[in-house]
Amino acid sequence: MWCRVLLLTALCASQALGYGYKTYWYTTQVDHFSFANNDVFEMKYLVNDTWWNGNGGPIFFYAGNEGDIELFLENTGFMFDIAPEFSALIVFAEHRYYGQSLPYPNSSLSDPSKAGYLTSEQALADYADLLTYMRATLPGAGDSPVIAFGGSYGGMLAAWFRVKYPHVVQGAIASSAPILQFTDITPCQAFSKVVTQTFAKDSEECPRVIRKSWDAIDRLFETQEGLDWLSSAWRLCKPLNGSELADFRMWLSDMYSNYAMIDYPYPANFLSPLPAFPVKVACSYLHDDHGDDDKSLLTNLYDIINLYFNSTGGVDCIDSSSQGTDSLGDDGWYFQACTEMIMPMCNDGINDMFYPSPWNLTEYTADCKRRYGAPSRPLMAPLIYGGINLTASSNIVFANGLLDPWSSGGVMRSLSDTLVSVIIPNGAHHLDLRASDPADPPDVIEARRVERDFIGVWIAQYTKTADNNQFNAAKRHW
Amino acid sequence: MWCRVLLLTALCASQALGYGYKTYWYTTQVDHFSFANNDVFEMKYLVNDTWWNGNGGPIFFYAGNEGDIELFLENTGFMFDIAPEFSALIVFAEHRYYGQSLPYPNSSLSDPSKAGYLTSEQALADYADLLTYMRATLPGAGDSPVIAFGGSYGGMLAAWFRVKYPHVVQGAIASSAPILQFTDITPCQAFSKVVTQTFAKDSEECPRVIRKSWDAIDRLFETQEGLDWLSSAWRLCKPLNGSELADFRMWLSDMYSNYAMIDYPYPANFLSPLPAFPVKVACSYLHDDHGDDDKSLLTNLYDIINLYFNSTGGVDCIDSSSQGTDSLGDDGWYFQACTEMIMPMCNDGINDMFYPSPWNLTEYTADCKRRYGAPSRPLMAPLIYGGINLTASSNIVFANGLLDPWSSGGVMRSLSDTLVSVIIPNGAHHLDLRASDPADPPDVIEARRVERDFIGVWIAQYTKTADNNQFNAAKRHW
Repeated sequence: MWCRVLLLTALCASQALGYGYKTYWYTTQVDHFSFANNDVFEMKYLVNDTWWNGNGGPIFFYAGNEGDIELFLENTGFMFDIAPEFSALIVFAEHRYYGQSLPYPNSSLSDPSKAGYLTSEQALADYADLLTYMRATLPGAGDSPVIAFGGSYGGMLAAWFRVKYPHVVQGAIASSAPILQFTDITPCQAFSKVVTQTFAKDSEECPRVIRKSWDAIDRLFETQEGLDWLSSAWRLCKPLNGSELADFRMWLSDMYSNYAMIDYPYPANFLSPLPAFPVKVACSYLHDDHGDDDKSLLTNLYDIINLYFNSTGGVDCIDSSSQGTDSLGDDGWYFQACTEMIMPMCNDGINDMFYPSPWNLTEYTADCKRRYGAPSRPLMAPLIYGGINLTASSNIVFANGLLDPWSSGGVMRSLSDTLVSVIIPNGAHHLDLRASDPADPPDVIEARRVERDFIGVWIAQYTKTADNNQFNAAKRHW
Repeated sequence: MWCRVLLLTALCASQALGYGYKTYWYTTQVDHFSFANNDVFEMKYLVNDTWWNGNGGPIFFYAGNEGDIELFLENTGFMFDIAPEFSALIVFAEHRYYGQSLPYPNSSLSDPSKAGYLTSEQALADYADLLTYMRATLPGAGDSPVIAFGGSYGGMLAAWFRVKYPHVVQGAIASSAPILQFTDITPCQAFSKVVTQTFAKDSEECPRVIRKSWDAIDRLFETQEGLDWLSSAWRLCKPLNGSELADFRMWLSDMYSNYAMIDYPYPANFLSPLPAFPVKVACSYLHDDHGDDDKSLLTNLYDIINLYFNSTGGVDCIDSSSQGTDSLGDDGWYFQACTEMIMPMCNDGINDMFYPSPWNLTEYTADCKRRYGAPSRPLMAPLIYGGINLTASSNIVFANGLLDPWSSGGVMRSLSDTLVSVIIPNGAHHLDLRASDPADPPDVIEARRVERDFIGVWIAQYTKTADNNQFNAAKRHW
C-alpha cells in the first residue's frame, strides 16, 4: 500500500490578477551545511518594486513552497494589497527542486545523491543567503526589515525562517502552517476529524452518507458487475479492477480533504472552477435516504466527483488515478513527505467519515525507501525546529482557518505576546493570504487587520533600534 | 605561503583533578540536513551524575570543541565546582572528527567527500540530537533544563547552540568565544593588538624588543653564518635554511599568541609546565639595551623560547616546526579554519609587535583549496549564525578576559538584558571555566558569580513555565 500523502497547498489560479514582477536568478550552494558537495545552482526569484520606498523600506518575502513560484505570487494577493501602505518591496523566492529552481535538472528523485538536498533546512538557507545578498547589494535595502510570508508548507517555512534566522527575518506571517503535524506531537486522526467537521457544518447528514459509502464501494468491488457499474456510472476513464480498492479509497479521501481545504466563500479555481462554499454545494447532493441501495447512494456521490473534476462539463471522463494537481510539484513533495515532512495520518471511520486506516510508520517508511532509496527521518523537523517549543522565538503570527483540515497541525493558541495565534472560524486553507474579495467573511478581514498591525509593530521595532543599529555599529566598531 | 592559523583552545592538563565520569556512545547522522549521505557514526560523551537530582535537575552540557573530550572535561572545573549547588547532571560531548568521534576513521581530511561534514552546524545538530535523546530516555531528565558551556571554539558552539536550538538549550555560558572573528565584522589586526597589549602590560619595553627582533632575524637569515648561529644558539633540532623565514616567523608569532592566551595567575601546564603569569616572566628576560647587537638580543629571546618549550629542562632541542599541541586535533581545526571558520588575521608591526603581514583572503583560500580540496566559505558562519545580530536570542553570558587575544572577536558589551557581556580584566583564555584556585583574581571570582546567578535565573524561568510545561501540554492536547 502506498500511504496517503496530501499535498498541502491549494492553488487557485482564478486570482491571477496580473501582478507585475521581474524574474531574477541567484546562485547559491546546493549544500549550505557541509563541504562534501560544493555544487551551486540557480534559484529563481520574482521582484515587484512598484511600491517600494528604496530607502530602508521593508522587504515582504514569500517563502516559496512546493510548486512554481509564479503560482504562489498569483495567489498571495494579500502581500500586494498591503505593500502600498508599507512601501514594501515584494520578493517571491522559488523553493529548490520545484519550478525551474532545479539543482540537478536531469536527475531523478529516486537518486538520493542528487535529490537528497531537497529539505526545508536547505531551502531556508537558500532564502537567508538570497536576502543577505539583496540587503548587501540592493541600494537602499541595507537597513530594510524583512517580513516573511507563507501559506501551508510555505507558512511552515515562514515561521521556521523567523525561528532559525531572526537576524535575517524580523517577523513572519505563517498561514495554515501545520508545524505540529509531526510524529509524537499531533494525533494522526486530527486531520480527518477536521475534514469531517467541515463536511458536517452545513449538514450532519453529509458525513454520515460519505461514511456509509465505503461499505457500498466495498460491496461493488466484490463483483465484476459491481466494478463495471461503478466504472460506468462514475464515467471513469479506465475501468476499475478489484485490486485497486485501496488506491480508489485514497483517491476519494483526498478529494474530500481537498474540498475542505478550498472551501472558500467565493468561486475559486483549484484544478477546475468550483463554486463558492463548495463543501455546502457538494453536501447538497447527498441524502441519507437510500437505505441499502448502494447504487443509488453512489449515483448521488458521483455528483460530488463530477463537480470537483468536471465542473465545466468539458471533461470526457474522470481520471481516478490523479487529483490533477499538475501545477504543483507533486513528485518533489512526495519525496519530502517520505524523508523529512512525515505527517502521520489515520482514520477510524467513527470519529471521522473516512474508511478506517491506521497509521503505520514502519510500512510507510518501507514504502518510501522502495520508492526513493532514502530513509525516513520522522523526528528530524521537530529536532531542528522545536515542534511546539517556540517560546524563545518571537514575532510570528500563526493564522488558521477552522474549515481547513491543516489547522489540525497548526498553532491554535498564542504562545506569547509575540507568537500569536489568529483563528479564522470561516476560513479555509490560507484564505487570509489571498487578495481581498467582496465575499470575504468578517473574520478573515479581521485576521488580515491583525496581521497588518503586527507587521507595522515589527517594522517599527526594527527601525527604532535592535539589529539594524547594532549591525551598523558592528560594522563601524568591531 | 601557508597563512597563520591559530588553535583556539588552551588546554591545561595540570588541572587533571581526577573528575569521575562514565563514557557513552551515541549513534547519530553524519549529515543532519540532507538525505544524500545517510551514514551514521558514533559520538562519544562523558557523564557524571554524582550530584544530579534525577527528577528534573538541570543538565550541564559542555559543547565539545577541537580535541579529545576528556581534556576538556579535565580543564573545565567550573562545571564540577557548581554542579552540587544546582544538583546538575554533567555531560561532555565530543566534537565530530576529533578524539574518537570519527565519522570516517580511516579517511583523510584532504578528501572533502568524507571530511566535508566537519562543520559547526553538523556538530550542533549532533548535540541537539544527543540531548533530545537523553531527555526522552533518561528517567528524570524529561523536564531537565539544559545549560550549555563552552570555551574558545566550544564557547562559540555553546552560544550558537542557544541561538539555533533554544528549544533544547535554556541558556549558555560562552567563554572566550570569538563569534565575531569573521570577515567584515572584526578588523584583521584586532587579535595581534591584544597580544601586544598583554605583552605591554608589565613592561612597555617587552613588545618593543620583540618588534625589533624581526629585523635581527631577517639579518641572520641573510647569511649561512647567521643561520648556523641561530640554529645553534636556539638549540633547534633541525638547522634552519634560508627558505624557511616565513614559517619561522609564524612559529614565533604563534608562541607569543599562546603566551598571551595562557597568561594565567597560577602555574599551569600548556604543552609543558609554565609558571604563574608567564608573560611577565617571559618579558623579564628582555631588555632594550642591545643597540644593534642582533645576537645579544636573540640570545635573550631564546630564554622565552626555552621557557615555553623546555621549562622542565628535559628537552634536548627545540622543534621549530611545531607548537607541540599534539593533544589537540590540529588537523581537524586546520580543515575548519580553511572552510567555515575563516578568521582574518593581520599585523602591521606598528600598532602590534608582529612582523608585518597583510590579510590576503584570495591567497588564503587558494592555499586551503590546495591542501583540502574544499572551497572556503568565509561568510558561511555569519550567514547561519547572524554575526553580532543576536538580539532576537536570549540567555547567553559572553565572558572574555582582557589578556586573552581572542577577546578581539568576542562580544564585549551586553546586547540586551539576557545577552550579557562579562569582562574579566585579569583573565586569560577562558579562565572562568577552570576550577577555582587560590590565586584567582577577584574579577574571575566575580565573573563566575554572575554566571552562576544567570544559570539560576534560567533554570527558574524554565521550571516555572515556558517550554517545559508547553511541551507537556503539547503531548497531552495536540
